[in-house]
Amino acid sequence: MTRPNDGNNPLERLSALLARMPGIGGKTAMRLALSLVRADEEYVAALSEAIGTIHQRLRFCSICCDLCAEEICERCRDARRDRSIICVIAQPQDRMAIDRSGAFSGLYHVLHGVLDPLSGVGPAELKVSELLQRVGEGEVQEAIVATSPNVEGDATALYLAKLLRPLGVRVSRIASGVAVGGELEYADMNTVQRALADRRSL
Amino acid sequence: MTRPNDGNNPLERLSALLARMPGIGGKTAMRLALSLVRADEEYVAALSEAIGTIHQRLRFCSICCDLCAEEICERCRDARRDRSIICVIAQPQDRMAIDRSGAFSGLYHVLHGVLDPLSGVGPAELKVSELLQRVGEGEVQEAIVATSPNVEGDATALYLAKLLRPLGVRVSRIASGVAVGGELEYADMNTVQRALADRRSL
Repeated sequence: MTRPNDGNNPLERLSALLARMPGIGGKTAMRLALSLVRADEEYVAALSEAIGTIHQRLRFCSICCDLCAEEICERCRDARRDRSIICVIAQPQDRMAIDRSGAFSGLYHVLHGVLDPLSGVGPAELKVSELLQRVGEGEVQEAIVATSPNVEGDATALYLAKLLRPLGVRVSRIASGVAVGGELEYADMNTVQRALADRRSL
Repeated sequence: MTRPNDGNNPLERLSALLARMPGIGGKTAMRLALSLVRADEEYVAALSEAIGTIHQRLRFCSICCDLCAEEICERCRDARRDRSIICVIAQPQDRMAIDRSGAFSGLYHVLHGVLDPLSGVGPAELKVSELLQRVGEGEVQEAIVATSPNVEGDATALYLAKLLRPLGVRVSRIASGVAVGGELEYADMNTVQRALADRRSL
């Protein structure tokens, strides 16, 4: 039985490149590649251009280190936001989740990761010195550490608290426990432990 | 609460373009966009180029209508393949599934769809005239119609059989029934009906 080598086929090549994105398997990649073959020329050109220029177009905001197109991001430029409270997050997606909640009107600080010694991620790999310098400037009064409540996120929060407290800011941590709308019955053991330990008086 | 408009943000723009691909929701699109931000420059440039040139680089094979880079595709050029038997399929992915099975060494014919009057897809929208012309040239002795066993696929198969038989070729249909390795208990009603109706003597 012949098993043709498709290395030179533009479709197989596109599919192989798409399959290198996280969570995109071989079959999904081929489905996406074929959807691009069928898509209109204008869209395909726009997508190609957006991908090809993303590195040049994005930079770190010089205040909060979020990804943005300008020297200072939209949020850090927004005079209506409370500059005395910053929310320290691991990645840009987390900022979007908090934005969606509509429950925070301060500024952010994006670490671009969490401490993870096993993967070689230490403070130098994160935007930690930028955070310390920013807090050291005196405008910030509270830092909410909103890394995810898992081993790395908790360790990062404790580490940052130790560095930030001497600078005279209040350091807090987002609450964790049973999700709103979730069922206690189905919550995992660690979440139930945390929900009990962090109980609040009514 | 401020809800910033991110229309000019290159990251949001890339994410919005990625989200137009089938099966890619908003969160997945943002995850992919951020993965491209973190990816190395070489990969991002290669992906951008592969997407931007896919329309120019692909054409229909002038024999089997599969997508390929040349006038005639690799399979149709392969002298080791049996040219007397062709497998008629709806889309390029189906060719890949049959290739993977290793059970077919003839040539293909890609219809690029199935008859679907409700969506306005008639014979003129498919590579049907190309199939008839090809079979009319006399080399083909059997056409296996391998469209999927659903309403549109079955209707397409019956329609093609009616057109192909007068040209003196044997027309067959792939078997359908309980999947190999599957459980009769969990097979749907239509599959069980088909499995019984198409039973074969042992």
